[in-house]
Amino acid sequence: MEFYQVLKTRRSIRKFRKSEVTSELVEKLIAAAMLAPSAGNQQSWQFIVIRDREKLDAVPAIHPYCTMIKQVPVAILVCGDPAGKKWPDFWVQDCSAATQNLLLAARAEGLGTVWTGIYPLVDRMKGCRNLFSIPDHIIPFALIPVGWAEDEGFKETSRFKPELIHEDVFVGK
Amino acid sequence: MEFYQVLKTRRSIRKFRKSEVTSELVEKLIAAAMLAPSAGNQQSWQFIVIRDREKLDAVPAIHPYCTMIKQVPVAILVCGDPAGKKWPDFWVQDCSAATQNLLLAARAEGLGTVWTGIYPLVDRMKGCRNLFSIPDHIIPFALIPVGWAEDEGFKETSRFKPELIHEDVFVGK
Repeated sequence: MEFYQVLKTRRSIRKFRKSEVTSELVEKLIAAAMLAPSAGNQQSWQFIVIRDREKLDAVPAIHPYCTMIKQVPVAILVCGDPAGKKWPDFWVQDCSAATQNLLLAARAEGLGTVWTGIYPLVDRMKGCRNLFSIPDHIIPFALIPVGWAEDEGFKETSRFKPELIHEDVFVGK
Repeated sequence: MEFYQVLKTRRSIRKFRKSEVTSELVEKLIAAAMLAPSAGNQQSWQFIVIRDREKLDAVPAIHPYCTMIKQVPVAILVCGDPAGKKWPDFWVQDCSAATQNLLLAARAEGLGTVWTGIYPLVDRMKGCRNLFSIPDHIIPFALIPVGWAEDEGFKETSRFKPELIHEDVFVGK
């Protein structure tokens, strides 16, 4: 798919069809995530692919905005892994860039996703730690349900706001 | 350009030719950034387009890893704007996703970029505040030199590490 078509039609999908997503596709999305830039190329990320139905269905109890996970066959939990890295304070940026790559790749494949935030909300992080056996040094960051959108329209969005652009110095609000 | 070609050939560019970058192209990159997802669609970002030669050349004194800015005609400073937003703790993720979109769009246009980190390093943030007259409630986040790469090869990179992928639960390091 053409780059700008992917970029302009990516949107949060919250209604999914009951269809499988192959392991090959999931790996392709994670490979896309791993192509993201990171501070000093430190790649401070890890990924948990969740297919266990009981675990997927248990998520809404720990994440109030992730009820749509009950409709999908698979979700990807992006985790931060800053321990021992050269730029540990940049792991959130590393993981965010990786997550955005993952969402865009999903769109390119015709898959729907939604970025549901975990970090830095303590309750959601704790819930994920318990459910997915995450050790202390790994930080649950964002949970991405992945599936086939019920409505495949993927309408174009525009969010361009010229008032948020400044020249040389910051002027205004 | 095809989506995966953009994704796989985006890389940090640190050597640039002395050629102009039009305002139309810069706006296209920022429009791409603004298409990023954000927590509750809060769009907690602002952008400063820097073309002032003196300001560009003054950056290396406040950012040791941004010497290549002396070679480019323009740089984009992505800033966080969390004040009054619904999910202020997610502004870093919002800005990171926007920055990644910007880098990818630049690659699609044949432009070279490099993500040089500002936040959360106090000295760099302070330096940017002074140089670009940034008020207290706006947070300098990342500075992106933009130009035409000296070497237009844009070789494909691969960073796939299967050992960073887990199934259902986190196992290993």
